[in-house]
Amino acid sequence: MARVQDDVADILQQVRNRKPLVHCITNMVTANDCANILLAAGASPTMASHPMEVEEITANCNSLVCNFGAIKDYEAMLLAAKKASSCAHPIIIDPVGAGGSTYRRMMICDLMQQTKVSCIRGNASEIEALLYNSSTVTGVDAASNAWDQRNKEEFLSSLMNYCKEHQLIVVVSGEKDLVADGKQCYEISNGHPMMARITGSGCMSSAMLGAFLGVFAYNHTELLPVAVSAVVTMGVCGQIAAEACLKNHAGTMTFRMLLIDAMSCLTKEQIIERIECRRLI
Amino acid sequence: MARVQDDVADILQQVRNRKPLVHCITNMVTANDCANILLAAGASPTMASHPMEVEEITANCNSLVCNFGAIKDYEAMLLAAKKASSCAHPIIIDPVGAGGSTYRRMMICDLMQQTKVSCIRGNASEIEALLYNSSTVTGVDAASNAWDQRNKEEFLSSLMNYCKEHQLIVVVSGEKDLVADGKQCYEISNGHPMMARITGSGCMSSAMLGAFLGVFAYNHTELLPVAVSAVVTMGVCGQIAAEACLKNHAGTMTFRMLLIDAMSCLTKEQIIERIECRRLI
Amino acid sequence: MARVQDDVADILQQVRNRKPLVHCITNMVTANDCANILLAAGASPTMASHPMEVEEITANCNSLVCNFGAIKDYEAMLLAAKKASSCAHPIIIDPVGAGGSTYRRMMICDLMQQTKVSCIRGNASEIEALLYNSSTVTGVDAASNAWDQRNKEEFLSSLMNYCKEHQLIVVVSGEKDLVADGKQCYEISNGHPMMARITGSGCMSSAMLGAFLGVFAYNHTELLPVAVSAVVTMGVCGQIAAEACLKNHAGTMTFRMLLIDAMSCLTKEQIIERIECRRLI
Repeated sequence: MARVQDDVADILQQVRNRKPLVHCITNMVTANDCANILLAAGASPTMASHPMEVEEITANCNSLVCNFGAIKDYEAMLLAAKKASSCAHPIIIDPVGAGGSTYRRMMICDLMQQTKVSCIRGNASEIEALLYNSSTVTGVDAASNAWDQRNKEEFLSSLMNYCKEHQLIVVVSGEKDLVADGKQCYEISNGHPMMARITGSGCMSSAMLGAFLGVFAYNHTELLPVAVSAVVTMGVCGQIAAEACLKNHAGTMTFRMLLIDAMSCLTKEQIIERIECRRLI
Repeated sequence: MARVQDDVADILQQVRNRKPLVHCITNMVTANDCANILLAAGASPTMASHPMEVEEITANCNSLVCNFGAIKDYEAMLLAAKKASSCAHPIIIDPVGAGGSTYRRMMICDLMQQTKVSCIRGNASEIEALLYNSSTVTGVDAASNAWDQRNKEEFLSSLMNYCKEHQLIVVVSGEKDLVADGKQCYEISNGHPMMARITGSGCMSSAMLGAFLGVFAYNHTELLPVAVSAVVTMGVCGQIAAEACLKNHAGTMTFRMLLIDAMSCLTKEQIIERIECRRLI
Repeated sequence: MARVQDDVADILQQVRNRKPLVHCITNMVTANDCANILLAAGASPTMASHPMEVEEITANCNSLVCNFGAIKDYEAMLLAAKKASSCAHPIIIDPVGAGGSTYRRMMICDLMQQTKVSCIRGNASEIEALLYNSSTVTGVDAASNAWDQRNKEEFLSSLMNYCKEHQLIVVVSGEKDLVADGKQCYEISNGHPMMARITGSGCMSSAMLGAFLGVFAYNHTELLPVAVSAVVTMGVCGQIAAEACLKNHAGTMTFRMLLIDAMSCLTKEQIIERIECRRLI
C-alpha cells in the first residue's frame, strides 16, 4: 500500500482539479448531505431521477451513484445505469437497507445483471445481505460489525469471491473499513464512531467514491487505490470533525456540519498525517 | 403526574437502552432532521416508502410514523399501517397541513378507519381541522394557537371526545403542549418559541413519539406518561438549544442544529431540572 | 435605482409584517433549506406536491415557486400554476438543470405557454439554455459565468428580448446578478463566491423571490424593485455569512448555516450599509 500512502493526497488534489460531475440517484433523507460533501470535495453533484432525462444527464457526467434508499426511482436507475455502462462510466451502488428488504436485494441483483457495476459500498450487514442473499437487519444506520462477530476469515473469503465473481470493488464500512477487489483487500482504520451517530455518513462515502472513481476510471488506472483514497479521505474528515466536536462538547448535528466542513478545508498534510491503512490480503 | 415527573428521565434512558427501530414514512422537507433526532435519542430510523417493501420493513420495526406531508406515499402508508396493526406496533400520525388540504383529511380518516392508530400529533390548527373535519389554515409551520383563541374549554371537550371515540392519544403542540387520552389531559410548558421559527420541530416530535411509544407499547404499560415524556424531552431540548442560541446571538439554523445536539447530549438531570407539566383534566 | 436603494430595507420589513405563504413545488435536495430561509425571512412555506391537493393549497397561498429540480412533480406544478394564474398569484420558475436536460426545457416551455409566469431565476448557464433553447452544462450548482465569457452585450440583448416577449422578470445569478424586466436591467454586486460552494443558494433565492413578489403582486406595485430587493437581501446574507465563516476558518456547511442565520437576524441597517446595485439598461 506504499502507493496509496504516497498518492492519496495527490488523488484528492486531482479530484479538485478535474471537478467530476457525479450523477446521484439517491434518497431524500441524505440528498442534501451528499450534494454538499461533493461540492466540498471540489466535485459537482446532479441528483436527477426522472426516467425521461436520466440518460441524457448521465451521459454528460463522470460517474453514476445508485443509492438504493431511492428504490422508488429504480426505473430511472436502470435507464441511467445502462447508459452509464455504454459510456464506460463507473457505477457505484449503495445497497442502503439491503439487509431489511427482499425487494431491494432483488432490484440490486437485477441492476448488477443488466449493467456493469464498478463498486458497491455498504455497512457490514448490508454487504453480508448481498454476499449471502439473505435478510440481516433493518436499521439503515446501524453500525453493524457483523464481520467482526462471525468468523472474519470466512467473511473475507466470501467477500473476495464476490468481488471476483462480479469483477468489482466492494467497500465495507464499519469500525474498520475494508476495500477489496478480489485480488487484494485493504483495511482502513480512519474514521470515528461519531460517524455512526448521524444519518448520511454511508451515503456520503458512496457519493465520494463516485467522485474519485469518476476522475480515474478513464485512464486505465488501477481503481483499488482510488477507492482506498476515497475511503481514507472520508475517514480523515470524520476524525477531524469528531475531535473538534468533542473538544467543544458539541452534539451530533454539529458533528454532521463539521464533517462536511472538514472536507471543504482538507489539506494534503492532514491526510498524510492521519492515513491508517494496511493490506490484509 | 407525580409518576411522569419521576419517570420521564428513566423513560428516555430506556429508549436509549432498547434502541427502537422507527419506521417513518415522512416528507422530504424534514426527513433528515427526523432521522438525525432519532439517532441522537438513541433510536434508529428507517425511511422506506416503496409499496413493495414497506410491509416487510415495518414488521421488523418497533413503531410506524405516518407523516402526511408524505401524502404521495399514501399507498405505502396504508400497507405499512395495516401490517403494523396486525403486529400490534404503535402507529403515530402527523397530520401535517391537514388544515389546508381536504384530500389529506380524507386520507387521514381513511387510515384511521382501516388501521389501529395509537397517537396523533399536530399543531392546534391541524388538530382542530381533524376534530371539526374542516379547513383551518394552510401554513404547515404556523405556530397557531387556535385553542387559545377560541373557547379553551370547548376545545378541550372536543379533544377528549375525539380521543375517546378513536381510542388514541392526541398531542397538540403549541406555546403549551397538550397530551390527552380521553381520560386525562396534561399540559406541558416546556419548549421555546424558536421551535416555531424552523421547519421540522413538529415532525421531529412525531418521530420521537414513535421512538418512545415503540419501546413501551408491548408491556401493557399505560402509554399516556410515555407520550408526555416524549413531549417533555423535545421541549427541554428546545429550551437548551434556544438558551445557547440566544446567548450567542445566533440565528434559526444554529438553533436547528443545537436542538438535535441537545437531544444527543441530554442528561437525566437536565430533564428533571426543567420538566414543567401539570394535569389539566 | 434610487427607489430601490431607499426601499429595499422597507420591502423586507413588509415581507416580515405580512408573512406571505409561499407554495414551493421544489426538489428534495434543498427543500429543507428553502423552508428554513422562508421562515427566517418571516414568510411561511408549504411544500405540497400531490396533484389531488395542490390547487386547493395554492389558492390559499400568496405565490407559487416551481423548481424544476422537482420535474417528477410536473403534473402537480401545472395544476398549481394554472390555479395560481387564475388567482393572479405570482409564479416563479427556477429552471434548475435546464442546461443539461432537454426534457426539463420542454416542460418549462409548456408551463410558460399554459400559465402566466411572473419571474424566472437561474444561473447563467440555465438562463442561457432557455434564451437559446439549447443545451449548456449539466452541473446544477456550477457557478457558470457564461454571460461574462460570451459577448455580454449580445447576452443582455437576448435577455431583454426574452423578458419582453414573455412579459416577465428574469434574474440571472452569478458573480454579479442581473435583474431585468425587458424595460430595465439592474446589476447587483452583493453576494459572495462561497454561495456557489454549497447546494441550495439558487433554490433559496427563488424561494425568496416567491416571498417578496407574493407580498407586492396585488398592489399594482412595479415588481422590478421588489425582485431587486429579494436578490440584494440574499446577497447581503451571503456576505455576512461568508465574513463570519472566513473569520473563523470554517467550512462550507457552517457557511450554509450562517447564511440562513443571517436572514433570520437581518437588520435594515445591514442592508442599507451593504447594498450594491446599479442600473445597466
